[in-house]
Amino acid sequence: MPRAQSDIEAGQERLVELACALIEERGGQALTLQEVAVRAGISPAQLARYFESREALLEAVAEYWFRPKVAIMEEVVASELPPRRKMYEFFARRYVMMRDAYRADPVAYEMYVELGNEYFEQVRSYVDLADHYLSMIIAEAMGEGFFPGLEIDMTLSLINQMVAPYCTIGVMGMLMDRLTEEKLARIIDAVFDGLSAQDRGAMGVSGLRAA
Amino acid sequence: MPRAQSDIEAGQERLVELACALIEERGGQALTLQEVAVRAGISPAQLARYFESREALLEAVAEYWFRPKVAIMEEVVASELPPRRKMYEFFARRYVMMRDAYRADPVAYEMYVELGNEYFEQVRSYVDLADHYLSMIIAEAMGEGFFPGLEIDMTLSLINQMVAPYCTIGVMGMLMDRLTEEKLARIIDAVFDGLSAQDRGAMGVSGLRAA
Repeated sequence: MPRAQSDIEAGQERLVELACALIEERGGQALTLQEVAVRAGISPAQLARYFESREALLEAVAEYWFRPKVAIMEEVVASELPPRRKMYEFFARRYVMMRDAYRADPVAYEMYVELGNEYFEQVRSYVDLADHYLSMIIAEAMGEGFFPGLEIDMTLSLINQMVAPYCTIGVMGMLMDRLTEEKLARIIDAVFDGLSAQDRGAMGVSGLRAA
Repeated sequence: MPRAQSDIEAGQERLVELACALIEERGGQALTLQEVAVRAGISPAQLARYFESREALLEAVAEYWFRPKVAIMEEVVASELPPRRKMYEFFARRYVMMRDAYRADPVAYEMYVELGNEYFEQVRSYVDLADHYLSMIIAEAMGEGFFPGLEIDMTLSLINQMVAPYCTIGVMGMLMDRLTEEKLARIIDAVFDGLSAQDRGAMGVSGLRAA
């Protein structure tokens, strides 16, 4: 008799947690299915019922790692906050979550950074999802008159660059000691006020190359 | 008879260039004084006249790598440009130089990133120097009324974070494909207009935590 889907899922979840513990101990490069099976006290054949390949396991690890960040993004985007505050919360809540993880165990944090760099395919869909949600906030802000004269894609790219230390995990790790929620708030204000400024006239540098 | 100082310096320069070629080929971790001596066709004893230790050689490599960037910073700071344009040129000229180096040889670029991460002591004084020059531009901008209510150190930190993809070499390498001078110009305008905005009132998020 085939196992119930929920049994499979509960088993997968438990194995992903074991895999994460192994990754945090020694990094993801060394991780093998064999090792996860040993740690779980099951045979490789039994493990294969849950994960057919190392790639499938790593994909599940990525899903597990990103799940609470995705929950934050969904909650913030669905909220009734005004767009500026929404964008602040969009970055701040994930930054605080990652900062706390970093403080609790900087080596484990670094292991996930390395894993993400090596298996960027598994990460890309989450980066795309974050861009999708951020674009929704940008569109909402544009509806209120912010970012005049800018396309959504250009605005998205500029914001991702201006806020990179608070959202790109590898960059965050490099600069963690200098990051604060207060600075992030000032940067988000500068994003809204600065990318919306219209009256700088000849003083601006962004017209230089067009001139 | 001791060699003339200029002879020593010319010899050091030539050896640093050889060391850079070796670093670009195989990274800095593997670099030994022995290897540089072989490449230069001299004995280790002769090499020791120029560099007493591997650390001294790496320090000279850092000086050599940063020299043209320091020249740009000095030239821009000494120029008569208005502060906003000065800040743009301060970042843009170094970004273009590093981007061109990256395009010419991305592997060699990565070797210097790794070397800088490993021997951050040799790099720190250049980071401090860049902060010093940027602070001069910020002070000049403040003299013209920009960044009201912000301390120089806070402004420096905010700008370094907002412009991180264009100045922190490791971050630049990660995001290189998405960087452009046009985006940098828009970010510098957002720095000046956004960090100088005063009339956002209750809309701002940077007063949230004080409230």
